[in-house]
Amino acid sequence: MRAAAYLGEGTIEVLNVPAVPPDPGQVQIAVTYTGICGTDLHILHGEMDARVRIPATIGHEMSGVVAAVGRGVEDLRVGDPVTVMPLRWCGRCPACRAGQQHICQNLDFVGIDSPGSLQALWTVPADIVVPLPPGLQLRTAALVEPTAVAVHDVGRSGLSAGEKVVVVGGGPVGQLIALVVRAEGADVLLLEPDQFRRGVGERLGTRSLDPLAVDVGEEVLTWTGGAGAAVAFEVSASEPGVRTALDVLGVRGRMVVVGIHAVPRPLNLHRVFWRELTLVGARVYTRPDVERAVQLLADARIPADQLVTHVLPLSEAADAFAALGSGGDVMKVLVDCREERAS
Amino acid sequence: MRAAAYLGEGTIEVLNVPAVPPDPGQVQIAVTYTGICGTDLHILHGEMDARVRIPATIGHEMSGVVAAVGRGVEDLRVGDPVTVMPLRWCGRCPACRAGQQHICQNLDFVGIDSPGSLQALWTVPADIVVPLPPGLQLRTAALVEPTAVAVHDVGRSGLSAGEKVVVVGGGPVGQLIALVVRAEGADVLLLEPDQFRRGVGERLGTRSLDPLAVDVGEEVLTWTGGAGAAVAFEVSASEPGVRTALDVLGVRGRMVVVGIHAVPRPLNLHRVFWRELTLVGARVYTRPDVERAVQLLADARIPADQLVTHVLPLSEAADAFAALGSGGDVMKVLVDCREERAS
Repeated sequence: MRAAAYLGEGTIEVLNVPAVPPDPGQVQIAVTYTGICGTDLHILHGEMDARVRIPATIGHEMSGVVAAVGRGVEDLRVGDPVTVMPLRWCGRCPACRAGQQHICQNLDFVGIDSPGSLQALWTVPADIVVPLPPGLQLRTAALVEPTAVAVHDVGRSGLSAGEKVVVVGGGPVGQLIALVVRAEGADVLLLEPDQFRRGVGERLGTRSLDPLAVDVGEEVLTWTGGAGAAVAFEVSASEPGVRTALDVLGVRGRMVVVGIHAVPRPLNLHRVFWRELTLVGARVYTRPDVERAVQLLADARIPADQLVTHVLPLSEAADAFAALGSGGDVMKVLVDCREERAS
Repeated sequence: MRAAAYLGEGTIEVLNVPAVPPDPGQVQIAVTYTGICGTDLHILHGEMDARVRIPATIGHEMSGVVAAVGRGVEDLRVGDPVTVMPLRWCGRCPACRAGQQHICQNLDFVGIDSPGSLQALWTVPADIVVPLPPGLQLRTAALVEPTAVAVHDVGRSGLSAGEKVVVVGGGPVGQLIALVVRAEGADVLLLEPDQFRRGVGERLGTRSLDPLAVDVGEEVLTWTGGAGAAVAFEVSASEPGVRTALDVLGVRGRMVVVGIHAVPRPLNLHRVFWRELTLVGARVYTRPDVERAVQLLADARIPADQLVTHVLPLSEAADAFAALGSGGDVMKVLVDCREERAS
């Protein structure tokens, strides 16, 4: 069968490799779609070589169908549509002992720290497989993982219906956060300098402004009747994004740190003190977040599939990465991993 | 009667001024003690001239006895021991409308924005007067206000009994936070580079280490069995303090921003994300915080009076400020405002 493999900085190649049959407690999935994530791009750029083992089959946003089950797996059957929650925890570290397994201090992020789904047949432990309801298209289901990220981020904000929320950054995660916030009955303003991304937001019904072209502070004050926003999601991973997310908040506002900031950022702690703001970090998701994401997508409460701008076959995996890396009119890139199977 | 007045950068003088009789709804208090706060020092240094009206009688940490009551005041009588919660809110701004009156966006901080208690007779609205229980010494009661700050800070942390807590900065507020945390049944480590302040902490039974002399990270890991602290209070208002407070936290740890940071601080948002940390600002106190502080002091559950290192008469108010500003072996300085009254 075919698998896309990261071979070192800048290089993805599709190789012919033997499929891995499922051991007891494992499931072999015929992968339908794998979405490419910003983290996958960082891997391609060689920035995460300390975590991946070359040749590395990466990929962790996916949907597929059960192809085979190992002994002892009773709740999944061949043909079941599934996705995977790509987290494996140690169960012993302080995070796990505190009931925060999703941020286990020895976390195995499947698709980074261990083999991922950019291959035709993917074998994983049964306990991280998540069944999908029959009505959910597999193309849409490839977005369960990033939607679970958004569900988790919104959960960490303590959002209430009717609150006014600013999302800073309109990439796929920012767009999904805006959609989840709206599904929760709150109001959203998306800030995004890129015109294409703003256009995606607007087409999805999310009010989207260019923070470089408007006075964001005035806009938010007018919108919120002088109070400021209740919640801001920092998804841009940029220094100006941090400043903006903090500055738009009203008294007791909450800022959720979603973006991954490689360096310390200047933060106005006086404002945190003065307005009694809260900053809260949000990373990955829990199983209930994933199940909630499945439900939101299955019920068509959020039109996440409209974020898909490109679908390429596995044989063109390198082009799929290039499309995402181009920074042009691209939002979510899926790789179609189906093939004539001859393992 | 006599009143200490700030007359401009560096100058405090004691003046003879007429006492203000209480209007309807007001109470005139014979001030017993007024504590000097770091904010009062900032005023003396000319850093808050935009907020004070010269000549300014400042002071907001106090205890006293009701000397006269205005018409309509029914729950207070001459001779009652009292303190004051020195906050007056507008009732109309977004903060007040959200039920967060204590951080009203037009807050009148009595003793800064309006006349304070560094005088023999102080007239204030009855609704900010807080009665004291009979057993509470007025010297101790002068510490109700900073103790209420500590109670509020600890409340904002969401502390649970048994948690392990780091306090960064061992001035009066840091010491009081450590005492309140201990009264709540949690364990404290105080970090303070000044030897005298560490000595005060140790005498109060708070384990106190010099962060410049020990490996704080190792100390906290050993103390917490590898987990990291559940809560850190940043009270030092310094850049290294911010770094330390963040670095000692375990998964889902909470950092309370107590210190007033005049400039933005570099903050490791990657750690906030990775460990799902929470930062929370804490400013002043609510009425329940003040009442809880009164109770903690009245029940002798925290020995706050041991923080008092200097008591000077009102006639030596300038020396009292000089003692606090010296940075030597000083913790809490009280001014005894009693006099032979001839208003």
